[in-house]
Amino acid sequence: MENFTAYNPTKLHFGKNVIDKLGETINEYGKRVLLIYGKGSIQKNGIYDKVIQQLNLVQAEVTEYYGIKSNPLVDDVSRAAQLGKLNHIDVIVAVGGGSVIDSAKITALSIANNTDPWAFMTYKVKPIKTVPVIAVLTLAATGTEMNGAAVLQNHKTGEKRGFVSTLMYPQHSFLDPEFTFSVPKNYTAYGIADLIAHSLEAYFGEGDATLSDRFVEAIIKEAMEVAPLVLEKPTNYDYRSRIMWAATTALNGLTSHGRKYGDWGVHDIGHNLSFLYDTAHGATLSIAYPAWLKLHKDRIPERIAKLGNQLFGTNTVDETITHLEKFFKSIECPIKLSEINIGKEKKNEIINQMIQTQINGLVYKLTDEDRTKIVELML
Amino acid sequence: MENFTAYNPTKLHFGKNVIDKLGETINEYGKRVLLIYGKGSIQKNGIYDKVIQQLNLVQAEVTEYYGIKSNPLVDDVSRAAQLGKLNHIDVIVAVGGGSVIDSAKITALSIANNTDPWAFMTYKVKPIKTVPVIAVLTLAATGTEMNGAAVLQNHKTGEKRGFVSTLMYPQHSFLDPEFTFSVPKNYTAYGIADLIAHSLEAYFGEGDATLSDRFVEAIIKEAMEVAPLVLEKPTNYDYRSRIMWAATTALNGLTSHGRKYGDWGVHDIGHNLSFLYDTAHGATLSIAYPAWLKLHKDRIPERIAKLGNQLFGTNTVDETITHLEKFFKSIECPIKLSEINIGKEKKNEIINQMIQTQINGLVYKLTDEDRTKIVELML
Repeated sequence: MENFTAYNPTKLHFGKNVIDKLGETINEYGKRVLLIYGKGSIQKNGIYDKVIQQLNLVQAEVTEYYGIKSNPLVDDVSRAAQLGKLNHIDVIVAVGGGSVIDSAKITALSIANNTDPWAFMTYKVKPIKTVPVIAVLTLAATGTEMNGAAVLQNHKTGEKRGFVSTLMYPQHSFLDPEFTFSVPKNYTAYGIADLIAHSLEAYFGEGDATLSDRFVEAIIKEAMEVAPLVLEKPTNYDYRSRIMWAATTALNGLTSHGRKYGDWGVHDIGHNLSFLYDTAHGATLSIAYPAWLKLHKDRIPERIAKLGNQLFGTNTVDETITHLEKFFKSIECPIKLSEINIGKEKKNEIINQMIQTQINGLVYKLTDEDRTKIVELML
Repeated sequence: MENFTAYNPTKLHFGKNVIDKLGETINEYGKRVLLIYGKGSIQKNGIYDKVIQQLNLVQAEVTEYYGIKSNPLVDDVSRAAQLGKLNHIDVIVAVGGGSVIDSAKITALSIANNTDPWAFMTYKVKPIKTVPVIAVLTLAATGTEMNGAAVLQNHKTGEKRGFVSTLMYPQHSFLDPEFTFSVPKNYTAYGIADLIAHSLEAYFGEGDATLSDRFVEAIIKEAMEVAPLVLEKPTNYDYRSRIMWAATTALNGLTSHGRKYGDWGVHDIGHNLSFLYDTAHGATLSIAYPAWLKLHKDRIPERIAKLGNQLFGTNTVDETITHLEKFFKSIECPIKLSEINIGKEKKNEIINQMIQTQINGLVYKLTDEDRTKIVELML
């Protein structure tokens, strides 16, 4: 087992009507609030009204920034940070899924350190402080509600990048499974693909961490058991709550204790696909994971087979991959680029992008030949 | 799933030589340190010297309180608190197992709130602040290094009681598996029984929490797999680290999310046995759990069988209990009172104690008839 630090300062409130405590929680940090959200779905499903009611309860002075894209852009973060600085905000309230909360985290750093957000993402400037972030989660997927990570893309530099800092844990996160009732079927499934991919990135990490492996298996089994149920009954509280909690635990540190780091090669591939075609993050992962496993099947057969044994009761690498593909298909996640209308004519464009950004894992290093092979396996 | 809050403020440093950061960590809180430890084993195995070296590094002014018993007494806590107040200490450093760290937690409350420690244990006075506690763990067992719980006994009132407060999370905990290399075989096994019992108390808790159930199973499987290995090779770093981390996760909140509370009836039985005969905590649990399961086998057969299926691949309640007993026997933990020289002549004494203190679970309520039956099943 590798040395590690177990520390997670986020206070996460989970369950029915936890939003009722939002107002008093915000009040601990101040009155001037920057409210960040996406493209307006929270106004349709009533969540916006509930948040505003809580803000009014404590007479908060609210500045709004909305329009965060599902693949969030650094330009939005820059503008949100300018607005926040102008209004001397005390706290950011982020209402949405991963893209909104990630944007809020970097906005908070940008305001507190008075620095261009992309300077953090490229690890050129190290943040030394932050503005507190309170998250209200509306999508079970990325785990950002209980970790110090964020992902943004930048059209000027042609990149989608991740950044990690202990300053970026939300102070509080509010998770009411009912807030995810209106998430459409495809995005519910993408969220499930995402949480499974997070668990797998840890599983294929560096270091022998047996208990963390068991937690990975537990989370993936839970997700695979609930997936068909929640897709059939999207307003079932129990199913939504199980998926929501599984998504949090898949990336809140639990699966990483005792490892140096996860691999994250598949996420690197996925980010590049999202950058090129604005593909939903989860959909890129259900396509990229089977391809990555196929590339590695003769390199780490025992590790893959152990996973297959735990998840599917099989002992062969090929069957493990087939089972995973079958699962993704069963929840209508794509496993080939052709299923999302990216045809063979894009092959060179994708290969060039993968080579240009030198997609890689932290553990399993990829050559340009591997990058080409992976693209071929995804087509 | 029940509503819950996931929050654990302890910063836990795990691995080889993590003690090297102890000095600078203490320094964040101040110079005046109350050092609490047990009956001197840390002086024999060199851990005391390592701690003192760290304290000297930062020129700490150290007051020592030692002699904490393995079933810790409130009298020791009162004396430690007096000493701490007298010396205006800034921070407590607890070096030991559960008894030492639990004592330090209540000492910290007693100092900060200037209150008799038993007043907290009986929930008569609610603490409003604390002195920071830093734990250096030397025994994998109770999980106190990453939770807000403590257990003390009081010979005047004739009780062993537990207390829980969010103020009682250690600020930092240092876990070097090498610090447990010299733990004798029997106490290593009792620690394993303890962590399994903690997992089971959660499993038999209130509320349908499927992912937490899976985590329970993961932790118990991990413990059962490593148990024979660590007992055979007590200085194997990997085995010691696996047991140490399993013990922490068994009671740091992970297995409780989505439940109202655990049952804790078996711990109540165990505390009474420890009170009467100064029996090691883990040994009381390996005796009490099979008896508790036998009492409940016709009341909650499905729940017990589900556990048996996951842990032992059996579907019958009786076989589940037999397998658990076999496991405890295999690591030389007692499963009957007679094995620890408590004979049938003590039957009435024990029954009287159990009835007098009204031992009970939070979920599965016990009658006096149940209390009598459980004692008979343990004899």
